[in-house]
Amino acid sequence: MSPGRLYGVGLGPGDPELLTVKAVRVIETTPVIAFFAKAGRRGHARKIADRWIPPSAEEMPLFYPVTTEIPLSDPAYNRALAQFYREAAARIATELDAGRDVAILSEGDPLFYGSFMHLYIRLKDSFPVTVVPGVTGMSGCWSAAGEPMTWGDDILTVLPGTLPAEILRAKLTATDAAVIMKIGRNFSAIRETLRDSGFYDRAIYVERGAMADEKIMLLKDKPDDSAPYFALILVSGRGRRP
Amino acid sequence: MSPGRLYGVGLGPGDPELLTVKAVRVIETTPVIAFFAKAGRRGHARKIADRWIPPSAEEMPLFYPVTTEIPLSDPAYNRALAQFYREAAARIATELDAGRDVAILSEGDPLFYGSFMHLYIRLKDSFPVTVVPGVTGMSGCWSAAGEPMTWGDDILTVLPGTLPAEILRAKLTATDAAVIMKIGRNFSAIRETLRDSGFYDRAIYVERGAMADEKIMLLKDKPDDSAPYFALILVSGRGRRP
Repeated sequence: MSPGRLYGVGLGPGDPELLTVKAVRVIETTPVIAFFAKAGRRGHARKIADRWIPPSAEEMPLFYPVTTEIPLSDPAYNRALAQFYREAAARIATELDAGRDVAILSEGDPLFYGSFMHLYIRLKDSFPVTVVPGVTGMSGCWSAAGEPMTWGDDILTVLPGTLPAEILRAKLTATDAAVIMKIGRNFSAIRETLRDSGFYDRAIYVERGAMADEKIMLLKDKPDDSAPYFALILVSGRGRRP
Repeated sequence: MSPGRLYGVGLGPGDPELLTVKAVRVIETTPVIAFFAKAGRRGHARKIADRWIPPSAEEMPLFYPVTTEIPLSDPAYNRALAQFYREAAARIATELDAGRDVAILSEGDPLFYGSFMHLYIRLKDSFPVTVVPGVTGMSGCWSAAGEPMTWGDDILTVLPGTLPAEILRAKLTATDAAVIMKIGRNFSAIRETLRDSGFYDRAIYVERGAMADEKIMLLKDKPDDSAPYFALILVSGRGRRP
């Protein structure tokens, strides 16, 4: 018997209509649908894909053992996640060994900061894999904001907001356009850094872009420094515009 | 009479199945379909969308007055393009004024180095606009290559290969992951810069990713320095991997 195929399926930024035609086809025809979720929750990926998953699908939720309870810097976090990914990969391998295809749902694009990658690197040498790219969360956000991001020879830098302020500052002085992701816990430091960079007046804050309850405003008009997980800051480039 | 709505429709990287469900819906239901093309050609965007355009659509090709005949640095290039975008925007405005919706096809994502942006900035203050994000060309390429691009707190820098070598060199020393686009005429200089950066051994060359005739190889295995327009170089990050 030949093994099943593993699919990494990009779901796009949140609107179920922003799945690709290929992603929909794979979800509708793959017998096992796996997805990450916080323990006890249905999970954001599962919700985005809801209308496309047939009743016949066997669903395989993969519940994170920890999310924000342990800091990333704690070795216990790393150990817990490594064990989780190993066990999840083993469950999926059992299905693939039995000749059943498995699709792993992945918010945004599977190979761009995606949890899918942790399973992919554990399975890709043993099974056939197809990665279906998706619209990234940042594309969803700049489209929702109607903000052209990069022109001509603009350089775009994608920066996790979790970086130390001095690194963030250095990167912002050396780019034409920027996306700052994962801004949650560092919001006030990021805001200060942007003030120093000269980008502050045009920086745009987007919360839950391409979702039903999206919020979009100039960063300077946002009165507080609190943000949910699905939030980012956009600084558009000013390159060549004939 | 209320004016028509302008749609900027992302087509994704080249595979017609990588349009989003929303892009397909907009293309199938919008009476006027506009797209850029080289004079006398059908155009790449038109080809990608071919299966989704109904026979009833009124097609509006927008033929570039110049492409590579005049260097970008020549003021004549800028003047020719500015006039072209102004006239194209006027043609589209005529349709919108007549109450007809217009969809502008855009390879990749409309607001990420897209020609759509030149029409968008000329029309957005006069007409209602919806931007439908798309899978970027770079996502299509790293998915085709099966290369996870960014992990944990990795910084990604998107660099036009048209930048001077010393700037490219500086940016490559200050990033975790990189995408080098528009490599055509600077291929040998880019290759040298990557050799100096320490990224050379893992740099991946992708030509026409997500299209029928894609080519993917390690850059060090590519024997010559010639590349078509749809080619880029990927350097993946090495961030946190539990």
